[in-house]
Amino acid sequence: MQVEVQVKDILESGVELTDQALERLLPSGDTVPSSIHRAMRHSTFAGGKRLRPVLAMEAARMIHNRGGALPKGVADLGAALEMLHTYSLIHDDLPALDNDDLRRGKPTCHVVFGEAIAILAGDALQTLAFQTLARLACPAPATVEIIKLVSDAVGTVDGMIGGQVLDIEGEGTQPTAESVDAIHRAKTGALIRVSVVSGGVYGGAHAEDVARLTEFGRKGGLAFQIIDDILDVTQNSEQLGKTAGKDLTSVKATWPAVFGLEESRRQADKLIAEAFAALEPYGAAADGLKAVARYLVERTH
Amino acid sequence: MQVEVQVKDILESGVELTDQALERLLPSGDTVPSSIHRAMRHSTFAGGKRLRPVLAMEAARMIHNRGGALPKGVADLGAALEMLHTYSLIHDDLPALDNDDLRRGKPTCHVVFGEAIAILAGDALQTLAFQTLARLACPAPATVEIIKLVSDAVGTVDGMIGGQVLDIEGEGTQPTAESVDAIHRAKTGALIRVSVVSGGVYGGAHAEDVARLTEFGRKGGLAFQIIDDILDVTQNSEQLGKTAGKDLTSVKATWPAVFGLEESRRQADKLIAEAFAALEPYGAAADGLKAVARYLVERTH
Repeated sequence: MQVEVQVKDILESGVELTDQALERLLPSGDTVPSSIHRAMRHSTFAGGKRLRPVLAMEAARMIHNRGGALPKGVADLGAALEMLHTYSLIHDDLPALDNDDLRRGKPTCHVVFGEAIAILAGDALQTLAFQTLARLACPAPATVEIIKLVSDAVGTVDGMIGGQVLDIEGEGTQPTAESVDAIHRAKTGALIRVSVVSGGVYGGAHAEDVARLTEFGRKGGLAFQIIDDILDVTQNSEQLGKTAGKDLTSVKATWPAVFGLEESRRQADKLIAEAFAALEPYGAAADGLKAVARYLVERTH
Repeated sequence: MQVEVQVKDILESGVELTDQALERLLPSGDTVPSSIHRAMRHSTFAGGKRLRPVLAMEAARMIHNRGGALPKGVADLGAALEMLHTYSLIHDDLPALDNDDLRRGKPTCHVVFGEAIAILAGDALQTLAFQTLARLACPAPATVEIIKLVSDAVGTVDGMIGGQVLDIEGEGTQPTAESVDAIHRAKTGALIRVSVVSGGVYGGAHAEDVARLTEFGRKGGLAFQIIDDILDVTQNSEQLGKTAGKDLTSVKATWPAVFGLEESRRQADKLIAEAFAALEPYGAAADGLKAVARYLVERTH
């Protein structure tokens, strides 16, 4: 199928560009102090799908060149978003939080480097993300706007850290539609949404573009998290590279725990359709972003 | 004495302006999710001296108004620097790192809120610092320059996190002049230096101002850390609000452990004199910054 070939190319090229940027931006494993740089690299190069960078790059491509070439330097924005995602995974996996020994089939950062270095490696990846954003190759006002958007998206009020805290605070209580929605929107949704929006701003988005990309990113991001929840129930540990079913057995806030599998799948499909609708004004220029979104929902079928 | 009155006014006014900014910028303890906001406030309002904000404000005053009024909005820069300092203290105190139960005479963040929330509260204070910097009331190019400088200063290469890792890696080995110098310059020196330099950039510093402020901040920052080491040896726990002598007994990298008390004092005095010399071109406009530096070194006499 044409579409599948296209999304495969987009994803492979996105991973390659992101990995090249990360390789350049992260200090080498020999750079003093070496333990933290090796720890940062261990978790950054652990086989991540680079979904957030791909979304940022495709949004930038759509706005900047109506679907043509990528704007120069956008891979650094993608790399910064991936650093923030990786920092959150390192800290989530710590013994004091989710206490996970395995991530993407590999031992987690604290298992290999100890808790102290894992805490500091997460801290340092957050810092390096902002060091990277401050050096983006776009005009200073766009850089400042991107740092505002991205820092808000990983903060405590409707952002990534806030979602993590809501998740912890809700442990042991029965999840409701409202609580799961609030956690998903903040914990994973905000960073996915801002990947799309910041990519657009990098590409020169105007206010109406930002509104459309926000709508696309909000609905697509929620769909992505619902599908992640579904995969956790329906796939085994080997396929996932982490302990399957853990979220359900410990009464974690997941979409299937509240709505069941079938209804969750239906809602994800509906959200993707609504996300697509927000991109209608861009016509064929939105094909790249749409292909990525379609790939996300088709993982569960 | 005239000078003592002046520095008392500067410090008191600096604390007041910083605390007002922090009160406005930190979400209230009622804001959802409340546990993390209460944890962030617990550590931020634990009686810190606000030294970094005071240095930033006095540097901004010297550059912007030749020692006259403070430039508008500079307290937000000070608040962001204090958030970064507080985040580093919360993470340093964790059981996996220094395992300190007491800081400034109060129970540390993880003792009150648990390790998970303490880790996330530190993360969130780093994020809020960049949210705040991105909204500074200076032109976009100056904002971008400040975010570059500040993010580098708290990073792994010659920055705050790097110094923390050097400190951990060196534990149990005999400290040398070189190792203690490298740790101090990175762990505490970089953030102090960047407080002075970023304050100057906020005030409109040119390249030659940045060079002078860097020299002042580098030497003054090292002197400050040497004096902190001296105080740890010569004062008791009640005066310090933390467990005195801990650094020396556990063969931590401190200046007195390498050079002895008298030589450490002499070096601190020499560094302060050299720091003052870097500000000579500013004449009386530098009186505020100098008064703060003098206050720092006189703590030990």
